[in-house]
Amino acid sequence: MSLLVVGSLALDIIETPFATRDQALGGSATFISLAASYFSPDRVGVVGVVGDDFPERAWELFRSRSIDTSGIEVVPDGKTFSWHGRYHYDMNTRDTLATNLNVFAEFKPVVPEHFLNPDFLVLGNIVPDLQFDVIQQLERRPRLILLDTMNFWITGARESLDKTLSNVNALVVNDSEARLLVEHPSLIVAGRRLQNMLADDPLRIVVIKKGEHGALLFYNDHVFSAPAFPLEDIFDPTGAGDTFMGGFIGYLAKRGSVSYEDAKRAVIYGTVLASYCCSKFSTEGIEDLTMAEIYARFRLLKELSSFDLEEIG
Amino acid sequence: MSLLVVGSLALDIIETPFATRDQALGGSATFISLAASYFSPDRVGVVGVVGDDFPERAWELFRSRSIDTSGIEVVPDGKTFSWHGRYHYDMNTRDTLATNLNVFAEFKPVVPEHFLNPDFLVLGNIVPDLQFDVIQQLERRPRLILLDTMNFWITGARESLDKTLSNVNALVVNDSEARLLVEHPSLIVAGRRLQNMLADDPLRIVVIKKGEHGALLFYNDHVFSAPAFPLEDIFDPTGAGDTFMGGFIGYLAKRGSVSYEDAKRAVIYGTVLASYCCSKFSTEGIEDLTMAEIYARFRLLKELSSFDLEEIG
Repeated sequence: MSLLVVGSLALDIIETPFATRDQALGGSATFISLAASYFSPDRVGVVGVVGDDFPERAWELFRSRSIDTSGIEVVPDGKTFSWHGRYHYDMNTRDTLATNLNVFAEFKPVVPEHFLNPDFLVLGNIVPDLQFDVIQQLERRPRLILLDTMNFWITGARESLDKTLSNVNALVVNDSEARLLVEHPSLIVAGRRLQNMLADDPLRIVVIKKGEHGALLFYNDHVFSAPAFPLEDIFDPTGAGDTFMGGFIGYLAKRGSVSYEDAKRAVIYGTVLASYCCSKFSTEGIEDLTMAEIYARFRLLKELSSFDLEEIG
Repeated sequence: MSLLVVGSLALDIIETPFATRDQALGGSATFISLAASYFSPDRVGVVGVVGDDFPERAWELFRSRSIDTSGIEVVPDGKTFSWHGRYHYDMNTRDTLATNLNVFAEFKPVVPEHFLNPDFLVLGNIVPDLQFDVIQQLERRPRLILLDTMNFWITGARESLDKTLSNVNALVVNDSEARLLVEHPSLIVAGRRLQNMLADDPLRIVVIKKGEHGALLFYNDHVFSAPAFPLEDIFDPTGAGDTFMGGFIGYLAKRGSVSYEDAKRAVIYGTVLASYCCSKFSTEGIEDLTMAEIYARFRLLKELSSFDLEEIG
């Protein structure tokens, strides 16, 4: 089934304790679409904006992964959005040194005509009003609309965010965002409350990402606890959350299913893709994986979280 | 098989956002032995010390759970150890308002003659030198010696702790203790390094407890990721870590096994007992459980962490 991805495309400056990289390909739509492409939905399309400095190697990468870039607006003489971040020693915390919106400042997403009926839609982390506007452009409601957001909008644009939330049936947030949204310390309570903020839909999915502690999936009345991939070393976590979303929805779009069993597997595939993302700089970890590599880590995650009941006499 | 538990017995003052309780039965040996008793190892014995203020209801509780209290020294005219703690709103953090060692200040554990050959030994969180001394008293090496410790000893008695660590084959710590012990942010790396601090033994087990995020079991070359029990409300987390240890080693002692499969199940049983511990004040949540209740939560943990691979075409 078809999948539409809306979000940012960026050329970042990334500093980790191990290395620094300038002009690193980034942005939520980039990571989401690359990760989703491994599951080969019928079509993956991106809506976003770049300047004419967006490098040929990036266009080539999208082509190599069969990603439809006709929804990416190129602003002549414009500069692509750029984030400059520095990771601390523990890789769990980071400082934003600069955010240069550039062409992103005036971004008004326009969904191309041939993508007005996507089966699946991901709204990467952008202004909530723009996310809402994309939903309004569509000719019919996708089976799944998956939303991302961040602390900046939760505290600074809460009303707009709530409106957008009430128009989607799936949300991915990290644990601190979840607690901030519902103001409750328990993630189990938070997941339930977040489901109630979503659209009045027979399906309500919330995923809370917990980094090194895995993820929780709230699927209607079900809760699924997914393990983290046991990475010893993290090279660059930039884009890991977006990559998780891309793996998650890419798998569902390929299956053409939003069943609970498939949603659980989707969380595991998201975890696998995110683990590969963290193991190299920028998008390099998810540019040329094989399905054998993806299945191998899926099986490892199953192995390290499986146990059986043996009643005792 | 027989199980010996060494640790504190206490009468605590507990303040939570919901209620305050004075003279609450507590102490590591209390929670460990109560939790272990559900798996009915051949014998569970406790070595510890109390004052003659230790209440009859506590002795009665131990008797009702068939716990051998002959190793508990009663100091005439002595006062039982007491901890006064206050939990914050989120229940994840707490302040120690007072620690009155009382009879515990002069505690020298003496293992009763009929417990000099235990098959399994748990060393609750006490001075590392005393933990070491208990090991020295035994006539032969138990199959498993499970050690607990805390930040106070890691920073204040590191040399003694290292000596004790190098004489045991199993360790349970929480995530912050693990990071402090090895000074590395990754829990996967921490688990591996902690294994290397243990005795030169064919079996090396490290469990890192992560509270609401579950637990990691490092068993020789294996890693197992256990889910947390999805509690919406925590009433009193005091003793949850000790209860986890008790469930863990109680199950292994009953099985008479230290296999990997049993160790995984033991982590789940520890998680189940700890979840019941948190749902009531003091020891009340683990005083009269049925095995049916324990199995029910075991099955729920299996259900909420199970998934299957479905390869895609």
